[in-house]
Amino acid sequence: MEHIGDIEVVPCSSSKYLRPFRVHYSQNGTKKYWDFMRTHDSVSVLIFNTTSHCFILVKQFRPAVYMCEWERTKPQRSLEEEPKEGPADDVDPPPASAGVTYELCAGLVDKPDLSLEEIARQEVLEECGYDVPVDKLRKITSYRSGVGVTGARQTMFYAEVSDENCVGEGGGKEQEGELIEVIKVPLHEAMNFAYNESLPKTMGVMFSFMWFHNNMASKYKISTSV
Amino acid sequence: MEHIGDIEVVPCSSSKYLRPFRVHYSQNGTKKYWDFMRTHDSVSVLIFNTTSHCFILVKQFRPAVYMCEWERTKPQRSLEEEPKEGPADDVDPPPASAGVTYELCAGLVDKPDLSLEEIARQEVLEECGYDVPVDKLRKITSYRSGVGVTGARQTMFYAEVSDENCVGEGGGKEQEGELIEVIKVPLHEAMNFAYNESLPKTMGVMFSFMWFHNNMASKYKISTSV
Repeated sequence: MEHIGDIEVVPCSSSKYLRPFRVHYSQNGTKKYWDFMRTHDSVSVLIFNTTSHCFILVKQFRPAVYMCEWERTKPQRSLEEEPKEGPADDVDPPPASAGVTYELCAGLVDKPDLSLEEIARQEVLEECGYDVPVDKLRKITSYRSGVGVTGARQTMFYAEVSDENCVGEGGGKEQEGELIEVIKVPLHEAMNFAYNESLPKTMGVMFSFMWFHNNMASKYKISTSV
Repeated sequence: MEHIGDIEVVPCSSSKYLRPFRVHYSQNGTKKYWDFMRTHDSVSVLIFNTTSHCFILVKQFRPAVYMCEWERTKPQRSLEEEPKEGPADDVDPPPASAGVTYELCAGLVDKPDLSLEEIARQEVLEECGYDVPVDKLRKITSYRSGVGVTGARQTMFYAEVSDENCVGEGGGKEQEGELIEVIKVPLHEAMNFAYNESLPKTMGVMFSFMWFHNNMASKYKISTSV
């Protein structure tokens, strides 16, 4: 799907996106510190198309995932060592597909004036092309992500859409460099998809598919043996 | 459970734990870059005690989660602004409980000589005090975590233990500053626990509880209406 090349890794002394902080604190009288990153909370949305009985996911190239796989292709060395800087011409880089993941439609909570539902609605429109009324978004639950590093709260929603709600192609914001492919996973294939480890995905996909099977099974007449 | 005090936040120009890198690459001919962090893969383990019919979880104070809640108590401001440095004496800090999360027993894959199962076994022993033979660890699945920042692979296991396997108190490695409380969640309360948002937890807890209900229900004679 993609061609990835000209890979070059450099240390990042100042990043707009990743900014480590250190908190000093005392826990039961013992002085400690912890390095963490400030980040935004986020929302994710399980989208089910009731016309085609498909889940709508997004598929995209994730540089961080790709770099994990790139590390794996190299001679064994410790993560504590400095990475070799400069062009990666010493080994053949893995194919771009090694960095492609399947995910729920999702986005950061970075607009203080909007509710979580409104932010979720915008993401569904931008990434997947469906215009969903805010009151059709049902909250599934919330949880903590990256508890060691960011600890942000992620809230998961469920949205039923129909072909009539489809008003565009989605694909993300091109001006922000997003290159998102919209993917349909038929309901009857969903649990096989979820447990197929050759298709890299986030836990959100697996959790939400299972939630659907457990909570929507009667409505859509599917087997609960998942 | 804990007392947290003397909180002080400083920028972290050099962290042993969080080291941002930048990868420059071209995607379909377009030059791009992405900031990411190198990290280890990890394992997590759903532990079920067949003597008491309880799940065994760990509960610990997570500074990154606490700092998220600390931010929430302050006057609204953008994450892009610099945080106020120095002692946090301008507002009352939230109680320590705001930073406490419930999680699966888990650990980093940072010992190249050990298999994933062996690392999982060590974590179960260190954190929860159960000595589980490696061949009793059943792989559930694997997925990608933190796809925007780290992209590491996490592999989830299932371990059945009995009171006879309990050889210690667990609690983590004290020399590494770990302060882990071992928690039992009775099977019949598990799904209420999972969806109780006032008990902050990782998605791994929720996903694995649901996996258990869907896959072990017949063995342990529980209702599948979750």
